Formats: sequence, structure tokens, C-alpha cells
Amino acid sequence: MADYKVRFDSHPEPIQVPSGTLLVEVARQAGIEIQQPCGGQGRCGRCAVRVESGQVRRRSVLRLSKSDIDAGYALACQTVVEGDAAIVVPPPEAIQRRLTTDHTAPEAVIPEGYDALRSQSIRRVSIQLTPPTMDDQTDDWGRLCAAFRQATGLEQRNTSLDQIRQLGQILRSSDWHVALTFDTGKKGEARLIRVQPADEAADGPLCGLAIDIGTTTVTVWLVDLLTGRVMRQASEYNQQIARGEDVISRIIYAGKGDGATELREMVLRSINGLIGKSCERTKIAPDDIAKATVTGNSTMMHLLLGIPAESIRLEPFVTSINHVPQLTAADAGIAMHPDGIVDSLPGVASYVGADITAGVLASELRSSADLTLFIDVGTNGEIVLGSSEWLVTCACSAGPAFEGAGVVHGMRADTGAIEEVWIDERTHEPSCRVIGNVAPRGICGSGLISLVAEMFLTGILDKGGNINETLTTPRVRQGLHGVEYVVAWAAECEGEEDIVIARVDIDNLLRAKAAIYAGFDVLADSVGVPLETAEQVLIGGSFGKYINVEKAVHIGLLPDMPWERFHFLGNTSVKGAYWA
Amino acid sequence: MADYKVRFDSHPEPIQVPSGTLLVEVARQAGIEIQQPCGGQGRCGRCAVRVESGQVRRRSVLRLSKSDIDAGYALACQTVVEGDAAIVVPPPEAIQRRLTTDHTAPEAVIPEGYDALRSQSIRRVSIQLTPPTMDDQTDDWGRLCAAFRQATGLEQRNTSLDQIRQLGQILRSSDWHVALTFDTGKKGEARLIRVQPADEAADGPLCGLAIDIGTTTVTVWLVDLLTGRVMRQASEYNQQIARGEDVISRIIYAGKGDGATELREMVLRSINGLIGKSCERTKIAPDDIAKATVTGNSTMMHLLLGIPAESIRLEPFVTSINHVPQLTAADAGIAMHPDGIVDSLPGVASYVGADITAGVLASELRSSADLTLFIDVGTNGEIVLGSSEWLVTCACSAGPAFEGAGVVHGMRADTGAIEEVWIDERTHEPSCRVIGNVAPRGICGSGLISLVAEMFLTGILDKGGNINETLTTPRVRQGLHGVEYVVAWAAECEGEEDIVIARVDIDNLLRAKAAIYAGFDVLADSVGVPLETAEQVLIGGSFGKYINVEKAVHIGLLPDMPWERFHFLGNTSVKGAYWA
Repeated sequence: MADYKVRFDSHPEPIQVPSGTLLVEVARQAGIEIQQPCGGQGRCGRCAVRVESGQVRRRSVLRLSKSDIDAGYALACQTVVEGDAAIVVPPPEAIQRRLTTDHTAPEAVIPEGYDALRSQSIRRVSIQLTPPTMDDQTDDWGRLCAAFRQATGLEQRNTSLDQIRQLGQILRSSDWHVALTFDTGKKGEARLIRVQPADEAADGPLCGLAIDIGTTTVTVWLVDLLTGRVMRQASEYNQQIARGEDVISRIIYAGKGDGATELREMVLRSINGLIGKSCERTKIAPDDIAKATVTGNSTMMHLLLGIPAESIRLEPFVTSINHVPQLTAADAGIAMHPDGIVDSLPGVASYVGADITAGVLASELRSSADLTLFIDVGTNGEIVLGSSEWLVTCACSAGPAFEGAGVVHGMRADTGAIEEVWIDERTHEPSCRVIGNVAPRGICGSGLISLVAEMFLTGILDKGGNINETLTTPRVRQGLHGVEYVVAWAAECEGEEDIVIARVDIDNLLRAKAAIYAGFDVLADSVGVPLETAEQVLIGGSFGKYINVEKAVHIGLLPDMPWERFHFLGNTSVKGAYWA
Repeated sequence: MADYKVRFDSHPEPIQVPSGTLLVEVARQAGIEIQQPCGGQGRCGRCAVRVESGQVRRRSVLRLSKSDIDAGYALACQTVVEGDAAIVVPPPEAIQRRLTTDHTAPEAVIPEGYDALRSQSIRRVSIQLTPPTMDDQTDDWGRLCAAFRQATGLEQRNTSLDQIRQLGQILRSSDWHVALTFDTGKKGEARLIRVQPADEAADGPLCGLAIDIGTTTVTVWLVDLLTGRVMRQASEYNQQIARGEDVISRIIYAGKGDGATELREMVLRSINGLIGKSCERTKIAPDDIAKATVTGNSTMMHLLLGIPAESIRLEPFVTSINHVPQLTAADAGIAMHPDGIVDSLPGVASYVGADITAGVLASELRSSADLTLFIDVGTNGEIVLGSSEWLVTCACSAGPAFEGAGVVHGMRADTGAIEEVWIDERTHEPSCRVIGNVAPRGICGSGLISLVAEMFLTGILDKGGNINETLTTPRVRQGLHGVEYVVAWAAECEGEEDIVIARVDIDNLLRAKAAIYAGFDVLADSVGVPLETAEQVLIGGSFGKYINVEKAVHIGLLPDMPWERFHFLGNTSVKGAYWA
């Protein structure tokens, strides 16, 4: 076998190795440490290196995208030398970032063809009024409406008492030269949102908000309505979490005493805190925000507006309202211009809420000729199947396992959460990726999926979800909740306990994934279309931000399809609100 | 000369008197005291007796209407015996009541052809909904809207968050059988006001309010919308009086600090107090009131809604808004169903406010082919001239004299106010009618008009308003404010001072009546129509309730026209709101 010279960017001398030597082996000879959390099985992607030149053969490219390969990336544990080669070993952080980016949806882009005059309904016009005289005693409001009609061709029928209260003073202090912010409304009847002195408004900002209220996370995008640009994205935990981690416990809490009021105030604090911070960073005044589009699951929409959600929880699972009529910001309690307009996206029915409508919008399902499966999984999994011709949808009660709740050592996808696990199939020793690169505190939803998939692949779990108790590893043992597998010893952890996954946790996850997979089946059956024929699978929600699709396929959460059919869209709910 | 026998109902024996004897003389012979406050000049009408049978001759019938005469009434001081006669002397209270009634407008009558379905826009329908099932998970609101559309043919686009909040509970507790109260709205889009269990609403009341906000008095009519009947009329002083007696001082007060808020709360307390009392008496719940129509002068409308009124006071005297858009009761602050609809009548311009629009409506000016003069005089005098063909209007700043303010011993038309005066032309001694028949405390507007007219008729005043200082009566004297006439000595009064009218008061009154008369002239001139050609003069407002037209003509406040052309309409403002 011929020997080849392999050069590393970080090593002065080339290493001479026989043909077919694994790159990890070459690196070890050079004294270069390459991480292999998955034990060299080509599954974690952390050993990726870049082949600058020369000939190598990639045995597996499981964790690499086509663009990765085009850029020269190869998995050191799965790639053998077949000629002289020059290799760059990226710093571990670079790999991690690359992988994380892999999991993250692209940034918000301005929808193609955005036009402030056609794409949205908020306008601002500057009008010079003729001041009143003894010969023309038209009232201020009548004068304004007449000039407005002349300038825009629209009637101005609706406004708030507050606008009328401020009108006289603003007209006089501005020498009758004012800027009007209004919604073009429907049937030619505009709604006045704001009157300002024209020079104060001149070229000033005119903003909107896209708000997504998740059960766990609230996301706010501050948008420049004149250009369509997203000026700021901000997310924060929904403060309601303190009163229940899933929608069911929130509904129950809302039904007790002042629970509904408390929950409403909590989510408003989350939203308004995000608006406040976004305004501060962008130097926008809340009064410059004239419009908000709100989305969220049915329960979140009900709780935001103080509408009892009890009927969503009880059979036949009916919402009080799917499509909340247009409100003012003052009524909705949102910290923008009090006369600003708050539009809610419509829900479909029951648990298929406005977030899914937003997702369908943002995923452009409607305009795709291909059969597409759209999935948004959080505490509930919502699934949409269809194309531009038709759409069917269902919701599956997955339970909180995917959000890290209801699991012995579960936690939210926060710092300290194990989010990915690789297990050595020989030693059954795990290695973990932890959010924030700190000592682990628990396992989040994607960590759980990854862990269970690895346990299955390495023979720790059988198909029925039973832990193989005959394995000779201290990590498999009897615990408080039956047989368990130790993911991290107390000594490695932030807390004082071992982090384990117990049989009950596995059962939870199996039920959750079964619920979702059943959703796929029911949906596909209901229209007589085999799921496999779906030409793309779009994954939305924060679920889609962290999940390892490959492992999700392994455990049977996602349908087994070619990798390239899966696309991560990130938070499609807020994106849909933004588009709307 | 023949002797005749005159019988009195209260005297056993007939009195024998010669032909031509005055009835007061006959009564004196019978020992019957007949009041003659005007000194036997036939001007006060207080000596009216009823001639049951026999022959008398009425020298003057100045204070008697045609129906009085038909009923046999005669003024004892102006009627002579011309045959045997039987006379009934009504008790003094009866006379007073009759005279007062004379001055009072007829009771509210249901407008001809009132039809709950055509005359107004509030409806109630009872709807049985199909409950949701697992096969029909339509949301509550969607279900309601669909059933509503089916039942009424209307879309239901607008409602409040509160309605939506209550919806689920009401639907379920009523077994999906509900009554909806709504406004038919415009363009086929109804606005939901209330959802009730159908059995709770069954044949229950459905009410409206007509509200007139006067500078001095607030009037509320509670109306049964199903029949159009006025269930209750209630009036009370506008609590704002404590912060200024006329609109100008209120506007100034509103402009200082929290003045506007304070004034708003005051008038709302007045209105809501009246609503509360009316509801209590009629056993109506405020939630049963679905609609209110509000009127008042421009300033009152602005202050009610917290709209700055400053511009009404300053040239060019422009209102902020003449026609306030439809509001909810919650926004307006009116104590009825919070989602009830509050409509305001439109003002014309400047000081010609919604009360005049209401007056024009209530007086049916629009449908009269005759040239008509409509007058509503309070602190401001508003005048409308026209017919069904055209209408012109103006407002005259009369000042508060007619409401008893700005006058040394002026007071509102309240208990203790001198409201009518007669002066003996020989002795120059006055006799007064006092509201409530108590010791006098001051002079109200109508008392002032009566007093000045009497002073002029009896030579105490000349045409220029100068008091004749050469008269040998202690009642004409030099006072603090120049020459004055004593109307009541301290000994007769409730207070410790003589009640006088001074030169300054007379000047005030002259300016006020000149302002109003100038209004007539300007209005008539502006359209080239001589005022005398007006075929009727309609007098609205509380002014029209107390004023002695004859004396008002004497002093030149009202145009000199045949008595029968004057018609008192009472509070045309609240009546207009009721009609609207």
C-alpha cells in the first residue's frame, strides 16, 4: 500500500501514513486532538475537518450537507486518505457554531416585492389644513376629515375619544400642519391612529410588531413598515411558565379565582418587556408603533385576551373564538400606540391555532405544487399536509416531553441542558453537548430524542423501549423509577444528583412520538395519500431549531425519508405574523 | 240697573248685586277672599274663577286660553255680572297649578307610528344553537355568528372583548339557547351588545335613554324601546354648576389642571345618578339599557367626553368636534350596559350645538310649511328660522341673566325664587309669585323679565331702562349699585337683606334681550324675511317653561306677535334625543 503525506495547518511537518488511514488516526500521530463525542461512529459531526487539497474518501457524510462537502468538509472519523492531502482543523468552537447554525433557520428576510403601500394597511399622510376663521367655523374634526378625504379619497369614520381629545391642541400647536397615521381599513373607511405635528413626524419611524406567543417562549419582531425590514428580534420566556408548563395546566390555573387575570398580566409583561427593550435598542418610541399582528396557539390567544379557555381542554375541545376581531392596543394591553391596531391571525379549530395558520403562511405551503408535510412540534404537535391545491391539518397532544417537562431530569432548552448525546457502542459511555458548554443540569427535549435514539442504536434500548439490564455497565441500574441509564454522573454535573433517564421518561417520549406519528398517519390516511410521497417536510417551531432529524427519524418521531427533504424553517409562527 | 243673584259654591246664600258689578266685588260681599297679586289689572290670572252658569262679561281674557274660557273660566277682576250666575272659586293651589301647567309643555307622547323594528336600530333575537361535537368543533364565536347570520341576514363584525370573554360560559349555562341584543348597524354589519341566556331575556325589558345635558339641568328619559314609551323622566342639576354657572366659566375651569377630568366626573355623576334612580323606580337593570342618545350644547358635549373646549371660547369660536362618533357606554362613562351604544346628536357649529339639532327635530320644524321661529334660550340663546324648505340658525351670547346668574339678587329657578311679579300702577307696590310659595330668596330669570316688564308698564322704568327717581315710593332709592327698586323688604324675605333690582341688573337684562333680539334681526335680515311674517314661534328649553310671553314681548325680548302664535315645547333637547 502506498504511503501518502498529509499536512495539517497547525503542524509544521507532514505526516506520512499508508493509504486508507482514517484522518483521526493521522491527526493523532501529529499530536492533534480531534473531538469524537460519538466515539468515531460518524454520527455527531463534531470531528469535521476541511480538506484543502488532495484525495480522501468519505465513508459517511451523515452529518454533512452538500454545501459542507462542496466546501471540503469531511468527518475525520469516517474519512480515509487516498493521496497526499492538506487538512485544516477548525477550532472546536467553529465546528459547534457551524452545527448550531445548521440547526437554525435563516434570518428574517424582507418578503419579496414588499411595498409599503401595497403590502400593508398603515399609512401616514401630511396635511396642511386651512385654519378656521369667523367665516369658516367648521369644527376641528370636520375640518380634518374633509382635508383627509381630499388627500386620500377615504372616509375617516372611526377613531378613539383620545384622538379627538388631543386634536384641538395638536392642530393649533402645529399651525394646522399635521401628519395623520391611519389604517386604510375596509370599504373605504379609514381608522385614524395618530395625529402629530407634521414636523415632528417628518421622516420619523412608522413601525409594526409581529408577536408570537408560545407556551414557553414569546417572540417579538419590531418591523419598519416603510421598508418592511425587521429592525429587531427579541425572545423571552413566557412568564406564564411559573403557573404551569403546558397549556392544560395553564387552562386549569386560569379557571381558578383571578388566575385568568394573573396569566394575562404575566404574558403582557413578557410581551411588553420585549417591546420596551426592542424600542430602547432601536431608539423607537412605543407611540411610533401603529400596528401589531399577534399569533400563538389557541390557548395562548385566549389567555392573552382574558377569554376563558376551559372549553379547549374539555371534550369536544372547542375554542371560544378562533379569529379575534381587530382590537386597539389599549384594549389588548400591548405597549405600543394605544390607538394602534392589533390584528390576530385566525386559528383553524380546537388546538390548531393561529400559530399554525401563521406557519402555513410563512412556509408558503399554499404556493407549493409539491405535496408537503409541515410540522410544528412543541407541547402540542401540529401537522399540516397538502399543497397549493388542498391542506389538511391536525393537532396531537404530545405532552411536555419535547419541551423537557414531565421528565425526571427534564428541563427547558436553556443553559445547562444536554441537547445532544452520543453513546459509544462498545463501552456504552455517553458524551454530551450541553447548551452554553457548562456542567449539565438536565436534559431538554432534543437531548431526550438524541439520547433515546443513541440508546436504541447502541443496543441499550430495544424496539419496545425496554432497557437491556444485562449490559455490564454501571450506567444501567435500578433506580427510584425502575431501570435507568445514567447520562451524567453527579461529579460532572452542576447539581448533586446523577442525571438519568428512567423507564418512565422513555415511556413518556414514546407516547409523545407515537401521538405525533399517529397524527401523520391519520392525516395521510384521511386524504388517502401515502406519507412517503411527501416531497418536502418543513419543520417549524423551536423544535425545529434544535432537533437532530436523523435521530428523530431513528426513534420514529419523524417519517423515514431522505435527509434532503427536511427543511428547518425556525419560528414560522412569528414569521407568519410578520408576513401578515 | 237690574239686580242679579250671584251664587258661590262656598257660600250658602246668593249675593244680590247690580248689573256690571265686578266678580271680585261680589266675592268680597260674600266674605270670599280672591287673590289679586296684580292689583286687579287682569294681568296675573290668579283671580280666575269658574262661571258654572249665568251671564257675565269678560272685559279682558289676557291670562286665559281658549280652553279656559270654554271651561267657564273668567278673571274675577275683569269680569262683570250681567245676569244671575253661579260661580265656583277654585282653591288658590288649583289656580296656581293651572297656571303652572299653562307654562309647561305637554307630556312626552310616543312619536306617531312608532315601530320598534323601523324606528330604531336595537334588536333582540333568540337563537337556539347546535352544540359542538367532536365532528363539529366550530369555535363558539363562529357558531354564534353563523346562527346569527342565518337568523337575521346580518354579519356580526364588531363586539367587545368583554362579550367574547363571557360567551363560552353563557352558551354552556343556557344549553346553547341565547338571546342576542344588537345594533343593526350600517352596511349590514351588526354590533353585538349583549348575550344572555334566552330564558333570562324572555320578554324582559329592552331600554334606551334620551339624555339632555343642559348647562344647569341634566335630563334623562328612560325609554322602552319595544313600545317607544317613556317609562320615566328625571331631571337634576348638573353638578358642574359648582364649578361655574355658565359655559364660559366652565371652559375656563376645564382648562386648569385636572379641571376637565373633574367636570367630566361631575356631569357623569349627575347623569348616572338619574339613570340609577330611574332604574330603581322602574325595576330596570342598567344592563337592560342598550342604547343612549345624548344631546347638549357644544360645551356640555365636549366636557362630557373630556374633549378640550377652549377653542369654543376663543375667536373664531370653533368646536373640536360637532358630531361625536358612536361610542360604547364604557368609553362614554354612562352607567348602562357597558357595550351599549352611545350616539350623540350632531351640533351645527360653534355655539349652535346638538341641543338645537335636537330642538329642530323635536319641534318638527323640518316638516312645517309655515315660516317658523324656534327659540331656545338659556345662558345662550339659540334661534332657528325657517320651514321645511330651509333653515338658518344663530347663537346669541345672552349671558347668565336669564338663568338668574350675574344679577345682584339673581338665583336659579328654584324654591324661593321670585318667578313672577305684578306692580300696582298707582302705589308701585309689587306682589310676587315665589316658587314653592315660601319667603323669597332672590329673583330667577323669568322673575326678572316679569319685574322689568312691570316696572316699564307702571312707569318705574323708561324706554332706556332708567329708573324714575322722582317717584314718591320708598321702593325706589339709591343703593350700593346706583338707583334700585326694592322688590321685597328684608322682613318678608328668607335672608336678611332687601331683595332689589339695580340699574346694573337692568342693564344686564337689556343687553341679554338685545343680544337675542339682535339674533332675530340678523337671522331675518340674512334671509330677507321680515320676522313678523313668522307664522309660529316655538319656544324650547327651560326658558320656555317659566317665561311669561306677554311680558317678554313687553320688554322686547320676544317679537311682538299675536299671542296664539307662541307655542311652548318644553325641553325640546331631550325630546329630540328621544326621537333620535
